[in-house]
Amino acid sequence: MKAVRRGYSPIMRATVLNCTLKPHPEPSNTEDLAGHVVSALRDHGVEVELIRVVDRDVKPGVLTDMGAGDDWPAIHASLVASEILIIATPTWMGHPSSIAQRVLERMDGMISEQGPQGAPIAYNRVAGVVVTGNEDGAHHCISEITGGLQDVGYTIPGNAWTYWNKGPGPGPTWSDTDEGHEWSISTGKTMASNLVAVARALVANPIPAPPS
Amino acid sequence: MKAVRRGYSPIMRATVLNCTLKPHPEPSNTEDLAGHVVSALRDHGVEVELIRVVDRDVKPGVLTDMGAGDDWPAIHASLVASEILIIATPTWMGHPSSIAQRVLERMDGMISEQGPQGAPIAYNRVAGVVVTGNEDGAHHCISEITGGLQDVGYTIPGNAWTYWNKGPGPGPTWSDTDEGHEWSISTGKTMASNLVAVARALVANPIPAPPS
Amino acid sequence: MKAVRRGYSPIMRATVLNCTLKPHPEPSNTEDLAGHVVSALRDHGVEVELIRVVDRDVKPGVLTDMGAGDDWPAIHASLVASEILIIATPTWMGHPSSIAQRVLERMDGMISEQGPQGAPIAYNRVAGVVVTGNEDGAHHCISEITGGLQDVGYTIPGNAWTYWNKGPGPGPTWSDTDEGHEWSISTGKTMASNLVAVARALVANPIPAPPS
Amino acid sequence: MKAVRRGYSPIMRATVLNCTLKPHPEPSNTEDLAGHVVSALRDHGVEVELIRVVDRDVKPGVLTDMGAGDDWPAIHASLVASEILIIATPTWMGHPSSIAQRVLERMDGMISEQGPQGAPIAYNRVAGVVVTGNEDGAHHCISEITGGLQDVGYTIPGNAWTYWNKGPGPGPTWSDTDEGHEWSISTGKTMASNLVAVARALVANPIPAPPS
Repeated sequence: MKAVRRGYSPIMRATVLNCTLKPHPEPSNTEDLAGHVVSALRDHGVEVELIRVVDRDVKPGVLTDMGAGDDWPAIHASLVASEILIIATPTWMGHPSSIAQRVLERMDGMISEQGPQGAPIAYNRVAGVVVTGNEDGAHHCISEITGGLQDVGYTIPGNAWTYWNKGPGPGPTWSDTDEGHEWSISTGKTMASNLVAVARALVANPIPAPPS
Repeated sequence: MKAVRRGYSPIMRATVLNCTLKPHPEPSNTEDLAGHVVSALRDHGVEVELIRVVDRDVKPGVLTDMGAGDDWPAIHASLVASEILIIATPTWMGHPSSIAQRVLERMDGMISEQGPQGAPIAYNRVAGVVVTGNEDGAHHCISEITGGLQDVGYTIPGNAWTYWNKGPGPGPTWSDTDEGHEWSISTGKTMASNLVAVARALVANPIPAPPS
Repeated sequence: MKAVRRGYSPIMRATVLNCTLKPHPEPSNTEDLAGHVVSALRDHGVEVELIRVVDRDVKPGVLTDMGAGDDWPAIHASLVASEILIIATPTWMGHPSSIAQRVLERMDGMISEQGPQGAPIAYNRVAGVVVTGNEDGAHHCISEITGGLQDVGYTIPGNAWTYWNKGPGPGPTWSDTDEGHEWSISTGKTMASNLVAVARALVANPIPAPPS
Repeated sequence: MKAVRRGYSPIMRATVLNCTLKPHPEPSNTEDLAGHVVSALRDHGVEVELIRVVDRDVKPGVLTDMGAGDDWPAIHASLVASEILIIATPTWMGHPSSIAQRVLERMDGMISEQGPQGAPIAYNRVAGVVVTGNEDGAHHCISEITGGLQDVGYTIPGNAWTYWNKGPGPGPTWSDTDEGHEWSISTGKTMASNLVAVARALVANPIPAPPS
């Protein structure tokens, strides 16, 4: 079977990194919206692992292993086991959270890691973004995060994002209102569908290693 | 044949939009670097059309046709005929050029256009970015442009970009020096390879229309 | 009088560049919101000129004069006659409009122009931003535009911006609803107050020319 | 004396937050370049405190005090005691570091804090940015950071930044070469001069509290 030959399990897997600033068990709006995307992925038969990154001790740095006490290597292992990555972030100062940026920094080490065929390890993996906020900034968060992930080698399917915020000015949070939820959830279902479709297309016809 | 059924020609096509501020026949550094990507695409058997957008009268607006004298509809036709899109831009004030932003604005109309299967017309098309500058800003230009294109529905393959600038401060232009050219050209070859690979993967296994 | 000695008129002046894509006489949401800031500036005794840039022929390029038919030199003269600059822009693809980017490109020429004391001509001038949109993106537009203006030498007072949009997803435009207008108008009054205060502080105690 | 009446000491103070990912005693390129700005500030008679933020335990969150073990309140006290703030950051994935974003998140609490006259506490304070990188991204880092600081209420003087990187692609770090140092150091001297000039102008003629 083609998928097995490439070292992927025939079951597709996704890792969702919730980059909220709030540790468990505080409720997370970002996790609520991401949860709708998780459900849609599971409806497509994808195995999904959801990690709230702030609950782990992800050390500052740009290597895959920053030494004793560093929780990143376990997250890295999840990424490497997954064809699909979703970064879910709140919006602070109009930017992705410090936790989301920490994740990108730690993924820097993946640029020089290779997969089975000698291609960068992120090749033939796909990624998308979920953003919530009580203020404007989602489009920018999406561009910032996908900009970093493309650099690492992830492929970003069209319409592989969803978001929610209300404005102008500081407004309600996701859990304060139902307004606009329907659009965000529906957009999240499209996101899940597109992530799965492009991930499968790349399993069937993978990107080769870069020309030397 | 699957590709023909989907309305694509069996020969893959690319449109490269050079968004320099300089009209023909002024030399364009952006076109020089983009030319290396064009050559690599042709080596992959892709038919490439290169358009210097500033030479056309692309009216301000967000519709596909802004009326009398508008040159966008012809460019739109090229995009619709191409599986691959490359936006090539100089860096001004650290941003993509006004011409590149004009192109994104005019592509806004594509969000509501549908392809043969009822999916957004940009689905199953791929895009990449080429950036030159005499000052820092390429990563940001890439994120800005791909952020917009993802919104329209284009898929962005991993490592589908190349760039060149030297810093810090205002520095030489591409044509003033050979420094760094090798890296930019080699990165451009990877870009071409990845665009072709993902475009082919999506012809073979297209993204379906969004779930209703 | 200090102000006269520095070559400024004792009456403070502001130029507002409306960077809508819509030519006169189409109504502009951006101009509506900017109008509230204009009124507040006039209440502070500031003379205000409002220019809808799309109605002029601002040629592509990065020089102050791009030759025959170029309408930028007249706008440049307004900027040089004004202590206060406001760039007002709609949000397209989450970015400032192509007209706003064109304005920044043309202001590039000001980097090498000098004022009366040998300082860059933009020193001791202040700038702010007004953003409207039917979708998310205002914070990013503000950062992009002020990032460019700082580069030219403008000083950006704290809270020198206002914006309006509603989300998530494509939503109503400013003229479709009254929701949120109060916040945007009130924030615009603060913007006007802060622009005038910092402009006056810099007339009284100007930034000197850079150390050589 | 006017300055004393406003609660500022007659001696001007600056806080420099080095947002490197590398804890003491690792050498920091960002600190090296920031050091030149610090020297220039001291030449202007400014008292400067330099804090390497990664050496402190700055908890995730958006309040000024996140409880037991949180080192932010001490940094917050430094900011409140300083007329000048400099955020110095490395460039990772083309973005400000996760530490810089953490700083902005913690400064969110300052939006609702008031100074002696009822104005937001950041009013009449000025800020600038220092960026280093082994890859392109400085202009964007500057826009991102100043965008956040303007939101809090800081005034950003013209040309209040300096940076260094070499490209294209991953290149040498600051300490690997002397190339371009002269430009970055000279630009840093202008930055220091402009920060001091605008800070003094605002001590003499402060921005009033926002109109109610």
